[in-house]
This record gives sequence, C-alpha cells and structure tokens, in this order.
Amino acid sequence: MALALSLGRRGMGRVWPNPAVGCVIVKDGIIVGRARTADGGRPHAEPQALEQAGERARGATAYVSLEPCAHYGQTPPCAKTLVEAGVARVVIACTDPDPRVAGQGIKILQDAGIEVLVGVREAEAQRDHAGFFSRIGVKRPWVTLKLACTLDGRIATATGESKWITGPEARRLVHAQRAKHDAVMVGAGTVRADDPSLTVRDMGVTRQPVRVVVSRRLDLPADCILTRTANEVPVWLCHGEDAGNRLNPWAEAGVVGISCKVEQGQISVVSALEGLAEKGLTRVFCEGGGTLAASLLLNDVVDELIVFSAGMGIGAEGMPALAAMGIDALSEAPRFNLTEVTQVGRDICSRWSRR
Amino acid sequence: MALALSLGRRGMGRVWPNPAVGCVIVKDGIIVGRARTADGGRPHAEPQALEQAGERARGATAYVSLEPCAHYGQTPPCAKTLVEAGVARVVIACTDPDPRVAGQGIKILQDAGIEVLVGVREAEAQRDHAGFFSRIGVKRPWVTLKLACTLDGRIATATGESKWITGPEARRLVHAQRAKHDAVMVGAGTVRADDPSLTVRDMGVTRQPVRVVVSRRLDLPADCILTRTANEVPVWLCHGEDAGNRLNPWAEAGVVGISCKVEQGQISVVSALEGLAEKGLTRVFCEGGGTLAASLLLNDVVDELIVFSAGMGIGAEGMPALAAMGIDALSEAPRFNLTEVTQVGRDICSRWSRR
Repeated sequence: MALALSLGRRGMGRVWPNPAVGCVIVKDGIIVGRARTADGGRPHAEPQALEQAGERARGATAYVSLEPCAHYGQTPPCAKTLVEAGVARVVIACTDPDPRVAGQGIKILQDAGIEVLVGVREAEAQRDHAGFFSRIGVKRPWVTLKLACTLDGRIATATGESKWITGPEARRLVHAQRAKHDAVMVGAGTVRADDPSLTVRDMGVTRQPVRVVVSRRLDLPADCILTRTANEVPVWLCHGEDAGNRLNPWAEAGVVGISCKVEQGQISVVSALEGLAEKGLTRVFCEGGGTLAASLLLNDVVDELIVFSAGMGIGAEGMPALAAMGIDALSEAPRFNLTEVTQVGRDICSRWSRR
Repeated sequence: MALALSLGRRGMGRVWPNPAVGCVIVKDGIIVGRARTADGGRPHAEPQALEQAGERARGATAYVSLEPCAHYGQTPPCAKTLVEAGVARVVIACTDPDPRVAGQGIKILQDAGIEVLVGVREAEAQRDHAGFFSRIGVKRPWVTLKLACTLDGRIATATGESKWITGPEARRLVHAQRAKHDAVMVGAGTVRADDPSLTVRDMGVTRQPVRVVVSRRLDLPADCILTRTANEVPVWLCHGEDAGNRLNPWAEAGVVGISCKVEQGQISVVSALEGLAEKGLTRVFCEGGGTLAASLLLNDVVDELIVFSAGMGIGAEGMPALAAMGIDALSEAPRFNLTEVTQVGRDICSRWSRR
C-alpha cells in the first residue's frame, strides 16, 4: 500500500479533475502490475496495472489507494474491471466520497466474492486525496497558501523590489510545489507588480499547472507574460460578474474567464474557488499577493500554509504579506498548527495546517 | 575544557562587568577543583577552583575558558595565583583582549615555567565571551534582539492586544533568555503599551537582569511597574541629553539615568549602548518594540536575532515588528544567517547571527 500511495502521489497536479490514485497488483509475493492515474485523469490506475499483470492478475491481490470507481463514464467502472480480471483480494486505503462511488465500488467487489480490506494507511490516503475530497465535499479545491517574506512579514520593499527575498533553494521548492498542484493562483496586483510567468521551471515537468488570476475589474496589463503565453499554458481569469465586455480582449488571447460574485467591492474568493472546483481543479497553490492572501484567510478557505522566512528585515514601509484584515482581537485571527519546519538554503520553510 | 566552558556559561547574565569564566583543576585524571566567576564578577573562577583543590593543585592541570587575568584589581592576578598554587600546566580556551591582560596572563605563567596550551575549543569560548569581548573591543554590549510575532510580522493587533501571540513554551524560553543576559531593554512605547515588569519569573533566578528603557523625552507613565519596583530590581533610563530636569522624579524613584546623544530627533542607539557598556553591561536582550528594534537594526548593532513565529495572521493594520526603516532596495536591508530553528510548543523559534 505504501507503494500504491507513493505511485498515486506522483500524479498530484497532473490528473485533475480525478483523484491521484496508485494501484499495485501482487501475485505470490511478486509485483505483477503497478500504475497511477494517468495525466489528465484517464485511464485510471487499476486497468493499467491489470493490463501489466495480464493473466497473472487471476487470484492476485490488488492494493489501491482509493476505492475503485463504480460508475460508467468514458470507461467501464474499475471495480468491474477488477472482478473481470479475477483478482482474489482488494486492499483499499480509503473509501471514495464521490456520490457515484461511495461504497458502491466495494459492493461490486464483494458481490463478486472478492475479499475486500478497507482502511490500510487510511490517514495518509485521506491527506493525499484531500484536494479531490474537498472538490467533492465542499465544492472547492484544496488551497495551499504560500507566503515568502522577511522576518518582519514583508514581501517587497516600498518601491516593489522583491527579487530576491528568499534564496534559490526556497524558490526551487516553490516550483516543486507548483508542480504538485493543479493550478497556481495570484491576485491582479502581483501580475501588475511582477509580470510573472507562474510556470514550473527546471523540474522536468511536462504538464504545467493552470495559471489562475483573480481580478475583479480585469485591470491587468494587456501585454503581460500570462496573456502572451495563454495558448501554451492555460490562463484562467476569475473576474467580477460585473466585468461585462472587458473580458473580450482576454478571451481573444485564449484566456478563460470565470465569472465570480462580488461582495463589498471585492471578488468573493469562495465564489472564485467554487468556480475553479466546477471546472475540475482539486488543488490550488496561491502565491499571493497580500490582498488575495488576506481574503483567503479571512474566508477560512486556506487548508495549508507554507511560509518561507528569509533572514532579513525591511521595516514597516515594506509591502505586507497580508493586507488589512480588520482584526481587532487576537481571538479573531486565523490560527494554524505547525506540521513541519526545516531549513531550506539560507531560509526557513514552515508548513501549517488549518485546525 | 567542555566542563570549564559549561561552568562558565552558568554565570552568563550574573557576572557583569566581568567575563563568565569557568575553571577546572585536574590532578592525575581526577577533578580536584571547579568553579565559575561568582555572581557580580568576583571572585574569579581560578582562585575558587584552586581553593577547592588545595595542596592537590601542585603539579595539576588547570583548564580555564579564558586567559587568566594579569592585573592587580581588588584581588591579585589569577595568573599569579595559579603560579603560586604550583600547577604544572594551564590549558586556555582563548586569550583575553582586555588590554590589561592580552597575553600578559600567559606570559606570567610561561615565565614561571608552566606549560601553557592555548586555543582548545576556542570558537566556542569566543562565542561564550562575545559580550565581554564586545564591551572591551567595540565599547558596546552584545545585543540579542527578540521578535515575537505572527507569520505576517505583527506584534499586536491595531488595538494593541498582544497577549498572547506566542504560547507558554515560547514565553518561558524568553524568560530563560532574559536570565542569560545582563539586562533586558525595551523602548518607551512598549512601557506605555504593556506596562511590563521585565523580570525573570519562574526560573529560580536570584539575580535579576537590569531593566533598561530607552526614552528620549522620558514620556513614561509615572506609576508604571518599572518605577514602582526600581528599588528592588535596577531600572536604567536611557534618555536624551536634552531631557533636563524631567529626570528628577525618576531619579527620586531610584531610577538611574543615562544621558545619550540625540540624532534626527531620536536617541542614538549607538550612544545608548556605549553608555550601557561604560556602566559594565556585556549582554543586552532587547524585546522591542518596533521602533527600537528598527533603530538597532539600522545601526547594525544587533549581534543575534531570536524570532518566535506564531501560526497566525493579523493583517496589515497590526503593529509591525519593525517600524519604518527607510529601506528602498533589498540590498540595503540588514541580513542575518540562520544558526538554529526549532519548534517550541506551537511556535517556531529561529536564531540568526549577524553576517
């Protein structure tokens, strides 16, 4: 199962809208098939692993990091495929909350007389599938918020200089994180200030994450790198429902618009995330800036925080990592639990989970 | 030598204006005497250890974490005392840059025919004596700056609520750090906002660090805890040279005034630190607030940074850990090197050294 989970994780950021599942087929103590959900989400892990195994699947044990699917989509349900291949036993890390599956996959297997064991390395699997579960359960993707700031919480000088606060090792880790998410998301201010490409570089990645920009009024430079490259790597623009025909030039450049509710003059980030989930995203990596980050935190939709802290101080004129949040009492401030802290090059990387 | 250094460190914060030295006397593989500089700085480590050893010191080896002193003060020089005790060999961690010693201690020993070895665990000793060396060398104490802030670098909400951003384990570590310094220093704003006592609590400490407040105009509440307790634990006030007779009521309460240069409307922190070194302080622990911290950093007089980071965000209205510093370019921002990062309760504690 550890191998199935590890295989599955390799699909993170590449298999949306589907979960990143791993499957290992073992016959007489020998691995006869192993696979993960393919890029783009199809084919699933199980039929690939079974095809490798061929006749050896008969009487074998299949380890799957998520309950096999039970519904006919573009392919027959994996549970049926396992039955037809004649496996004797299926070990499942955790059940699939997707209403089209939700125990039905297990039932198909059991009805066919296959021995089913559920719950092996369950907590680990639930963490791995958290993005997919979030999309299915609360209709929004898992959100990882990255902050890269000085010891006093600044992301740039007053004049906007931000290259580089963190060192090359931290920046490389950011690219690795981008690659493990379905999309990279920033606010319009970041596009105006930095004109970023938001692609994964120097990691040997063949499938780039979607690039999402949140901008109520679409007040972005027309010739920014994102639009110029929108036909190579997708760019999605979360704009206010009141954006009107301002979207047209962007659409012509190949940018996909997502209309979002506006609340108190700002895009509702909850509405934006719901729009992203509807389009299939399961894991979103938000890289700021301060306004978007503050809005995500205030709306309690940040599932994980990754903070890179550099050993420097800029002072109070510097650009804050989090914009105004209207918090008067400490009891109102969003709190996170430390899960890991390490040195990365000359910087600190800390990871924090919600609740 | 490890034992001598460890003994010496126990004196940190208690032996100023003298260095915190440890001495171990070994005869035939057996420890026959060991001591550290006594609280208040006298007697030194060597005569105490020699007294324990008595006749057994003859032909023994003395391990000393700093070159024995060579000058007559209130006591005879330790180098002479070692000679008179008849030790055969003296192992010294590092030399003493004090011009009254500076190799003279070693010379006295060698002239008496004692074998002298210098430089054992030298780097460690130099770190331990950094405060004393700083007082002697650059005429200011070693400065440790503590920041305790949220992930976005805030030390309080806009309404001033700061209790508690960090958890009890981090706060306990702060008390341990206070105990290892000769003085705790804060700016006037912190006294007005928090009315702190700045004492070491719940650590079994019998000798409290001096409490230093930096306030150009002495605009402090007359009945603050610091003045009410100034007769129990010393309070030193670094005030502007233009404070005039505003010092009188404080002096009556037992507060010691230190007149400092004023530059661009603010107390020169360099002048304040020079004043503190003149009065004998070797290690100062600065706990903010943002204005004093920024001023120390801008003047490049922070030797070590200790940062406690709590897993919460307050947003841009919160009180910044560092006040305005007038830094436009990242290349102007003070940089520190990470020496250690650990989890402390629910918070992160990171330590950074200058250069």
